[in-house]
Amino acid sequence: MTTNTYALGLDFGTQSVRALVADTGTGEEVGVGVAAYPSGTDGTLLDPERPNLARQHPGDYLRGLTESVRDALGEAAANEETFAPARVVGIGVDTTGSTPIPVDETGRPLALRDGFDEAFSDPLAAQAWLWKDHTAHAEAEEITALAEERRPEYLAKCGGTYSSEWFWSKLLHCARTAPGVFEAAHTWVEHADWMPAVLTGAEHPDRLKRSICAAGHKAMFSDEWGGYPDADFLETLDERLAQVRRTLPDEAHDSSTPAGTLTPEWAERLGLPEAIPVAVGAFDAHLGAVGAGIQPGTLVKIIGTSTCDLMVTPTERDLPDIPGLCGIVPGSVRPGHYGLEAGQSAVGDIFNWFTELAGSDDFSHEALTAEAEQLQPGESGLLALDWHNGNRTVLVDQRLTGGVIGMTLRTTPAELYRALIEATAFGARVIMERYEEYGVEAERIVNCGGIAAKNELVMQIYADVMGRPIQLSQSDQTPALGAAMSGAVAAGAGDGGHATFDDATAAMTGVQDTVFDPTAKHQQVYDRLFGLYRRLHDAFGVEGQSDDLADVMKTLLEIRDA
Amino acid sequence: MTTNTYALGLDFGTQSVRALVADTGTGEEVGVGVAAYPSGTDGTLLDPERPNLARQHPGDYLRGLTESVRDALGEAAANEETFAPARVVGIGVDTTGSTPIPVDETGRPLALRDGFDEAFSDPLAAQAWLWKDHTAHAEAEEITALAEERRPEYLAKCGGTYSSEWFWSKLLHCARTAPGVFEAAHTWVEHADWMPAVLTGAEHPDRLKRSICAAGHKAMFSDEWGGYPDADFLETLDERLAQVRRTLPDEAHDSSTPAGTLTPEWAERLGLPEAIPVAVGAFDAHLGAVGAGIQPGTLVKIIGTSTCDLMVTPTERDLPDIPGLCGIVPGSVRPGHYGLEAGQSAVGDIFNWFTELAGSDDFSHEALTAEAEQLQPGESGLLALDWHNGNRTVLVDQRLTGGVIGMTLRTTPAELYRALIEATAFGARVIMERYEEYGVEAERIVNCGGIAAKNELVMQIYADVMGRPIQLSQSDQTPALGAAMSGAVAAGAGDGGHATFDDATAAMTGVQDTVFDPTAKHQQVYDRLFGLYRRLHDAFGVEGQSDDLADVMKTLLEIRDA
Repeated sequence: MTTNTYALGLDFGTQSVRALVADTGTGEEVGVGVAAYPSGTDGTLLDPERPNLARQHPGDYLRGLTESVRDALGEAAANEETFAPARVVGIGVDTTGSTPIPVDETGRPLALRDGFDEAFSDPLAAQAWLWKDHTAHAEAEEITALAEERRPEYLAKCGGTYSSEWFWSKLLHCARTAPGVFEAAHTWVEHADWMPAVLTGAEHPDRLKRSICAAGHKAMFSDEWGGYPDADFLETLDERLAQVRRTLPDEAHDSSTPAGTLTPEWAERLGLPEAIPVAVGAFDAHLGAVGAGIQPGTLVKIIGTSTCDLMVTPTERDLPDIPGLCGIVPGSVRPGHYGLEAGQSAVGDIFNWFTELAGSDDFSHEALTAEAEQLQPGESGLLALDWHNGNRTVLVDQRLTGGVIGMTLRTTPAELYRALIEATAFGARVIMERYEEYGVEAERIVNCGGIAAKNELVMQIYADVMGRPIQLSQSDQTPALGAAMSGAVAAGAGDGGHATFDDATAAMTGVQDTVFDPTAKHQQVYDRLFGLYRRLHDAFGVEGQSDDLADVMKTLLEIRDA
Repeated sequence: MTTNTYALGLDFGTQSVRALVADTGTGEEVGVGVAAYPSGTDGTLLDPERPNLARQHPGDYLRGLTESVRDALGEAAANEETFAPARVVGIGVDTTGSTPIPVDETGRPLALRDGFDEAFSDPLAAQAWLWKDHTAHAEAEEITALAEERRPEYLAKCGGTYSSEWFWSKLLHCARTAPGVFEAAHTWVEHADWMPAVLTGAEHPDRLKRSICAAGHKAMFSDEWGGYPDADFLETLDERLAQVRRTLPDEAHDSSTPAGTLTPEWAERLGLPEAIPVAVGAFDAHLGAVGAGIQPGTLVKIIGTSTCDLMVTPTERDLPDIPGLCGIVPGSVRPGHYGLEAGQSAVGDIFNWFTELAGSDDFSHEALTAEAEQLQPGESGLLALDWHNGNRTVLVDQRLTGGVIGMTLRTTPAELYRALIEATAFGARVIMERYEEYGVEAERIVNCGGIAAKNELVMQIYADVMGRPIQLSQSDQTPALGAAMSGAVAAGAGDGGHATFDDATAAMTGVQDTVFDPTAKHQQVYDRLFGLYRRLHDAFGVEGQSDDLADVMKTLLEIRDA
């Protein structure tokens, strides 16, 4: 008789929720269910009059949850003889973020109340404010300006700029533009907070546990200054924010902490055992890094349309603020470690943009990759900047744009495509070097995400440019796996889970056999090209850092001709 | 009874010769004949082993001449009742250049001697060395280096760099790589010298008149230092060049000077009157400017795959050397004027490169132009550099390359196409401003060449960027018309031609009705964009001229958003 136990990971993405049943002993993924959000356009509520608006209906999360979990359990049972729902020992949750939801005194989202859409003049404001909602651009600037003046320490933890995607910007925009909704809301909860609260019956604001990942990375929460930003600061922005501040707790929790245990109602609805622990939630990228096996010395890159570049370093060692990083939050990725987040604003998006320029077969990823693989580093004489969607790390400047130099009348599409890949690799190296400059060394790199799985050329170029062996995570659904791992840790070793994330990582994660090792002679060329990239990077990206560029084009031709 | 007279223009291009019969009173083009050169690939002799090699067979020039003139006369007779061959009063000639031909003691090209191809180990060296032959790259560098050291004045007239396309580079390369041919050659004549000499029976080196246009722009000829470069200088390069120097005359002639009169043999062969004057030849771009009506204050731009940007200014006024210009030669365009030549290394070639990247219907010039026309100046946020084939004027640097900044994930092909058009317009403005900085003012611009005729969007952008009214030459074969005008001037007013180029210009040239006037509000935007272009131009193109570029991308977005 087997002793296998399982953990359930719930990964609430932008378009759908994914439920994953993973073996706690091996990480084997025995069942998965995916449910698309039914509302809006691909799950997102839009407003043609407000192109920056992106909202979601909280009810979609609930429906998607039930459907995906049932499918995952069904698949697990069909796949795996030893599986039974009773063997699921814990649940973990990740979501997008910052995705704040206005809730009433009972913790119920305003958008789930009957007649809410007639109660408000702007009912979309009562929905969940999806991470990519950019309506709060002006408010973000206002918050950044005030923090620069009064609380620079707030900005030092989040790269120097408070984003329109984040918690307080969105709340302030709601207060200003939809005061009725704002007034009706008792408080606001992150999607990552709300899901575990729902499952454990702990939605009431007095009971709900807040995620340190969400609070620390998006809501200026830090123990250094006693939790959320102080009331004075918020009041200067808008006194109504100070009211919200009073509803927030003084502490936030990492994803090893149980938010509570599964209620009988949800246990029945989902077909799971009652009273199993549900971990406090975290963001998808952070638990994705966990599912990729993140540990000190490992840089996990989640490469999709954009990237997240995550590292952890033990909190027992002092860590200075690292300029340009998106976030530095103890416990946000793994308990006992600083979670360090950086990222590139566009990677896959840049490649897609290029292929869609022509949209012909010759411009498909496959055709361009096949041709680009035949090229040697430096052969094209091209050098590009990967800022088509701004620069998140280390320049933290959305008003930067892409660039390419070195074109001749013989420049081919495949050369341009490869130059764009190289540019994103150079951007990745800038991030890695910033980490290392502050003592956070990357001995190896684990890539995950769609592009990592699909394009070997990209991986080899990254290895050659970054000068580190690159591995690919075994799982291709690392956020859901990381969520399952947090469920296993919340359950604890005694109850069929794991005592620590270290144990869970050792047991449940792995990398694929293929390793992309740097090629010495390519590295030499790329070191030279990176030197040139860095000079353009500083010239166009940093005030007062332009040096003489008159040799750049000629050096590119010299490298090409050699 | 009519008194109409006619002049014949012979335009020896790269692929064919064009003969044009023009009314000397009105410039009306009454007959034209075009004959392709039969040899090689599109008239050019190539060598797969030597990709930089481009030669032509002098016999093609003779065959093409006869065929094209007969066709032109036939068409004139058919079109125009008043026309008769006896009414042709003079002949003018333009050719490509520098296209030197090795000839024997009698002035006969070596390639026209029987058995020449067995006589030499490299018989291609005995042919005409076409302008675009780039085999003499190393020799050009050697000549430039020596002149920088010993005769900087030689370089000051030709933009600071002696080109591999030019006379002495080609001769030196021949001496070094095909000494048998070099030894067999008594001297070398430019194609523009040889054609009038043939027609007038003045091929003998003692009688042949040299073109000031060819000598001045390509062979370092100037009255300032007594004609061709001195023997010491040439001897330092190779003593055999000094031998050639001894075969060259002390003077060279403009295209108002008769090279002689048509021989009875050629008169009969062509069906023309005996003894009509044949003008000394000149290069196609220079007589093209004449055919476009060039005069002081008019900048003539011949826009094709690359451009020539020509101006004239009276020699009675002192003119300093203008740095960066390709050539400054008194009489090369019009007698009594400095002929000033500048140019862009690629214009149409850049547009063609872009359309051919994808090669689909969406990327056709027509489709991209239609879409680009809908865009406002600055709307794309893009800024490009037009150096895909290097920069001829004012940087004189073939080792520069193209560039574009400002791309976002929403950048479209039409936006990129328009940015490339704008970049060439900015490059054109740099040239115009260099002229004006040295007192050669451009009050108006006359464009000719294929692109001028075909693309109104390009013309309007040029007007808006350059801030000058742009007109299009009436003739679409201005080199042949300019050649005919030089024939008319060589004939003189008394013999049915014109006394001066001024008279010929007034009578025989014109512009089309359409004028592209600058639009004030576009000009304002383009002035800002040009300021940014100029900063990139200097940063990448001029040592020690980089300033702080960190605002450039943001200013582009600011312009875009406004």
